[in-house]
Amino acid sequence: MRTVDPLHVRLLRLLRDEGAVSRAELGDRLQMPRPRLLAELERLVGLGYVAEAGLAASRGGRRSTLVELSPHLRFAAVDLGASSIDVEVVNGRLEPVAAYTEGADIRSGPKVILHRVNELLHKARVDGAYERLDAVGIGVPGPVSFRDGVPVSPPIMPGWDRFPVRELLTREHGCPAVVDNDVNIMAIGERHGGVAHSVDNFLFIKIGTGVGCGLYLNGEVYRGTDGCAGDIGHIQVDPNGPMCSCGNLGCLEAVFSGAALAREATAAARAGVSPSLADRLAARAAVTALDVAQGAAEGDVTCIQLIREGGRRVGSVLAGLVSFTNPSMIVIGGGLAQLGHILLAEIRSVVYRRSLPLATGNLPVVLSELGPRAGVAGAAVLASELAFGEAS
Amino acid sequence: MRTVDPLHVRLLRLLRDEGAVSRAELGDRLQMPRPRLLAELERLVGLGYVAEAGLAASRGGRRSTLVELSPHLRFAAVDLGASSIDVEVVNGRLEPVAAYTEGADIRSGPKVILHRVNELLHKARVDGAYERLDAVGIGVPGPVSFRDGVPVSPPIMPGWDRFPVRELLTREHGCPAVVDNDVNIMAIGERHGGVAHSVDNFLFIKIGTGVGCGLYLNGEVYRGTDGCAGDIGHIQVDPNGPMCSCGNLGCLEAVFSGAALAREATAAARAGVSPSLADRLAARAAVTALDVAQGAAEGDVTCIQLIREGGRRVGSVLAGLVSFTNPSMIVIGGGLAQLGHILLAEIRSVVYRRSLPLATGNLPVVLSELGPRAGVAGAAVLASELAFGEAS
Repeated sequence: MRTVDPLHVRLLRLLRDEGAVSRAELGDRLQMPRPRLLAELERLVGLGYVAEAGLAASRGGRRSTLVELSPHLRFAAVDLGASSIDVEVVNGRLEPVAAYTEGADIRSGPKVILHRVNELLHKARVDGAYERLDAVGIGVPGPVSFRDGVPVSPPIMPGWDRFPVRELLTREHGCPAVVDNDVNIMAIGERHGGVAHSVDNFLFIKIGTGVGCGLYLNGEVYRGTDGCAGDIGHIQVDPNGPMCSCGNLGCLEAVFSGAALAREATAAARAGVSPSLADRLAARAAVTALDVAQGAAEGDVTCIQLIREGGRRVGSVLAGLVSFTNPSMIVIGGGLAQLGHILLAEIRSVVYRRSLPLATGNLPVVLSELGPRAGVAGAAVLASELAFGEAS
Repeated sequence: MRTVDPLHVRLLRLLRDEGAVSRAELGDRLQMPRPRLLAELERLVGLGYVAEAGLAASRGGRRSTLVELSPHLRFAAVDLGASSIDVEVVNGRLEPVAAYTEGADIRSGPKVILHRVNELLHKARVDGAYERLDAVGIGVPGPVSFRDGVPVSPPIMPGWDRFPVRELLTREHGCPAVVDNDVNIMAIGERHGGVAHSVDNFLFIKIGTGVGCGLYLNGEVYRGTDGCAGDIGHIQVDPNGPMCSCGNLGCLEAVFSGAALAREATAAARAGVSPSLADRLAARAAVTALDVAQGAAEGDVTCIQLIREGGRRVGSVLAGLVSFTNPSMIVIGGGLAQLGHILLAEIRSVVYRRSLPLATGNLPVVLSELGPRAGVAGAAVLASELAFGEAS
């Protein structure tokens, strides 16, 4: 049995997503009698969620007053990557009022990393971004028990297993907090404010240091029984492929990911088959996925081949997932999305050729619109939903 | 936004799944005030859904009267396969009161097949199984627009594309009807009365003439954007494998399915590598998957090898789907489930070895409990839900 979203949640979402709205229009949009709406608004003003915002344009007769979310509402949005911390403080409309990005090794453990997150948030307060936070949303690069607010057996996060992330943030900032997987928050971000706006069934594929997938099914994130749905990095694509960090052979992540591409690009540079990569290797002693992207942009054939081969691998896995889930859209994001249209063209080619025609008849395969902001954007959405749910 | 299941639906479900219940216990179970419950019951008695069923055992004080679903409620459940028609008429508790099974080629087209379904149902009425039907549920072996009640581009059902199956059945029997994919109804059957009872996230794998999958996610069937979610038969498992009917190479269905197994068994019999299969080929000019099962049961090494090889192929696809969906259970059904524990052992072995440990830590991979009845059982559940939803 499902619960219907209560009135106050629908009302607050509408103000979050559309800004100031007149009382009259609110009544129309929420299809509710005026007395009940006014009582609810009065309650939300009292709780500090909603504020008056002047008079609306006339619709004939007495002018209705505008209401909007309180200008004091603040949510913190945190996106922890394998090697980065992104923090934003946003207002009720989810517009950033402060943003910080810095390198950090997730393997430093929860105490070090979350201490730094807290420092950044306190700095934002001192800088005037907020007086108090209404909710915190955070994404971490591993499986999460959404219910318990803790990471669960995260492979690349030593020391984080069942660490009470939610509890620590709640205590530190005196507000509710929500913890999710990093790919899920990116999918949530794209659905709220990106290319997948209002799409009910889509897959968000993150290709970065590793490879992961966020599933949006029937209009909500699907997290799986243990919170690890979407772990596609270890689907086997080549039984004779290289050994993966998980111990199996030929996992998708072992043949195509930021790490795999850097390894192959280095080998190509050393073998002398790519002048572009050899130059970069000579200049900086290491080549990265970004070098491959730049080489390809300059027309280096080996770089183009590396990207196309990767796209073919990702496409072969995606083709199966498309037949399996019959989504309305595929969104490609993460650091390697910068490989751009060469990658996209190859993925599309394989997906359209290999999936059931009915499932691909009208299936856009597109790049993320929010790019590196997708994660914090989704974390902000989650934080706002949490706060709105508690406004009762 | 979701709708909460209304009171009358919860009440009718409870009586369907548990039989006669006292008014007092109903009030407790549905957590509702007695006056409202009594009014609702009176309404449902008036509509012919609910009937009195004598006095309950004493709980002290006045004895409460029992209520149950009307003994006149009847649902029709139809499961169309590639080569079979299964029809049941069930009572309100979904117990069969009439059942028919016969061979039929789905390629005969909707008019011929549905005419025969109607004949069987009219025969059941003449035989006294019902006076009138309250709803019909039907499953077909192809993608379905659940909303429109029509098959959509079904590959093995020529002539059925967008044929108004729901409308025809509604008109013929004067009651509402619901159309779904055959694998979905099997999954629904197993969840209601089989091995997946009350499991919220599971995959039902049907291995028969073809291969398909039903997805139960977050407590409901997930059908996908075009109704073709779960089409795993055309996921590539061997780039060098045999040509599939879809035109691609090495699809799962082309390397392991009833049709593929019969082909390989025939080749093995002709090549003289399997005495068991050679005997059967000599006796009947063709060998089937069932012959392989019997050969394996008698210890024929080639038969055992064929089954294990098939299990390995299915397992490799399932391993990826387990990492992707992180389900609580995998149920194997369909005709080839009769290959039994040799098949199951091989599938388990590959899934447990290749999926993410977190996703398989507590993952049962089990055979269907309802066997060939899974489809009609699920169709009956769908029909009852439809009728209950309309009792307002």
